[in-house]
Amino acid sequence: MFLLNQIKIILVNTTLPANIGSVARAMHTMGLSALTVVEPRLPIDQSSYANATAGAFILDAAHISPTLEDALQDCGLIFMASARNRHIPKPVVNPQQSALLAQKFLAHNPHTKIAVVFGREDRGLTNDELALADYHIQIPANPSYPVLNIASSVQVIASHFYQHFCHELPSSGTVTLPIICRTDWDVPAIEFSQKNALEQQLIDLLVDLGLADDLALKDLPKRLSRLLSRLQLDQKEYRLIKTTLIKLKQRLNHPSP
Amino acid sequence: MFLLNQIKIILVNTTLPANIGSVARAMHTMGLSALTVVEPRLPIDQSSYANATAGAFILDAAHISPTLEDALQDCGLIFMASARNRHIPKPVVNPQQSALLAQKFLAHNPHTKIAVVFGREDRGLTNDELALADYHIQIPANPSYPVLNIASSVQVIASHFYQHFCHELPSSGTVTLPIICRTDWDVPAIEFSQKNALEQQLIDLLVDLGLADDLALKDLPKRLSRLLSRLQLDQKEYRLIKTTLIKLKQRLNHPSP
Repeated sequence: MFLLNQIKIILVNTTLPANIGSVARAMHTMGLSALTVVEPRLPIDQSSYANATAGAFILDAAHISPTLEDALQDCGLIFMASARNRHIPKPVVNPQQSALLAQKFLAHNPHTKIAVVFGREDRGLTNDELALADYHIQIPANPSYPVLNIASSVQVIASHFYQHFCHELPSSGTVTLPIICRTDWDVPAIEFSQKNALEQQLIDLLVDLGLADDLALKDLPKRLSRLLSRLQLDQKEYRLIKTTLIKLKQRLNHPSP
Repeated sequence: MFLLNQIKIILVNTTLPANIGSVARAMHTMGLSALTVVEPRLPIDQSSYANATAGAFILDAAHISPTLEDALQDCGLIFMASARNRHIPKPVVNPQQSALLAQKFLAHNPHTKIAVVFGREDRGLTNDELALADYHIQIPANPSYPVLNIASSVQVIASHFYQHFCHELPSSGTVTLPIICRTDWDVPAIEFSQKNALEQQLIDLLVDLGLADDLALKDLPKRLSRLLSRLQLDQKEYRLIKTTLIKLKQRLNHPSP
């Protein structure tokens, strides 16, 4: 995780001290620890610490900077979070792309800092501030309300940094899913209530047959539930199994002579 | 964005009403609007609305559900956010993979709901609750403090859903889709010969019950074979099913008086 130490989170002119703390918590969950606060309207206080939880050490070590330019002095690559398009455009990247760029940058400049700058809660960054960026980061969001709170913005962007730096995806760009996923649906899927009903019918059958104890499976319902989850039944298969269970029940209760 | 309407965010047993509001805001920024709150410790209140900002309409329409099971009734695919590994494992996916799975699921089941469940602020979800999931979502995070606050967790996961559903990345053309593959083995897998034997026993049972014709499933063996492939049984599950079939055969042939 040492490359994450090269990432500086910079907050500009924050209004609420509590938000500085929430940002520290979000950073800590993603392995980031370098925080700079540029000219906060109110200083870091108890509400900051309350929100930071285990990220308190980040507040202890935070730099308070008089200007954004000062805070950027040792940075070789500058990202700024921005919700809007701007008059003087800069290259716009999404969080995933910013993480990839940062990774490539650090591969060649492992001792240089990278800045990720976040603006005011209400107004973001000014055009003059945004002009200092190498890239603007835009989090893809609902066009009618793209207004993430500041800690959430940090969380989303930092999570991409963490994932790229610490859980590197195959460089080919392919994401492999080593998990169960039906891709052959030709009939609609069953719903949770149907799955539950089936699970109960199966348990009843096993109890009826005296098997629930025989198998000494104390966790039988959980295993059965997991097994049914994995099945991802469609409606046709569900009907087959359900009908089978009904017929079985009839035959067990009223055996033919 | 209409597919986003199929995603239900479910909060279980939330402590702070303010957090319900923060979740509503996070949802709105990512185009989600269906919120269910299961047994909140305190009801939605002014602090919820203060935090929801423009997401207030989500709180107005939120369902309050007495139990998680109720909330899940109409859901065909169930994700649960989980930070820990569990006794009986379920397939674990990251947020990106969950979004991809949801997308594929909805491509075939556009009218079925998908649940994304989040637990208590302090203790997450119980093992019993987690057992109801098809998949657990884990947000890659700092192993020494993987504790995102609940609105941040919703924000990160929802952002992946939004991005996949509304801003499909060019790279997703090359995303390879699963191959069904269990990753939660805690007992060895069965072998091909065992699977084949089981398939034959099941067909015999269906014929014996007069079901093979009833269902007019000419392709019954193929469907059954596909279903068993998907199951990827382990030896313990295999023993359970095999013993059940043996007992059933005994009872059907020699009914107790």
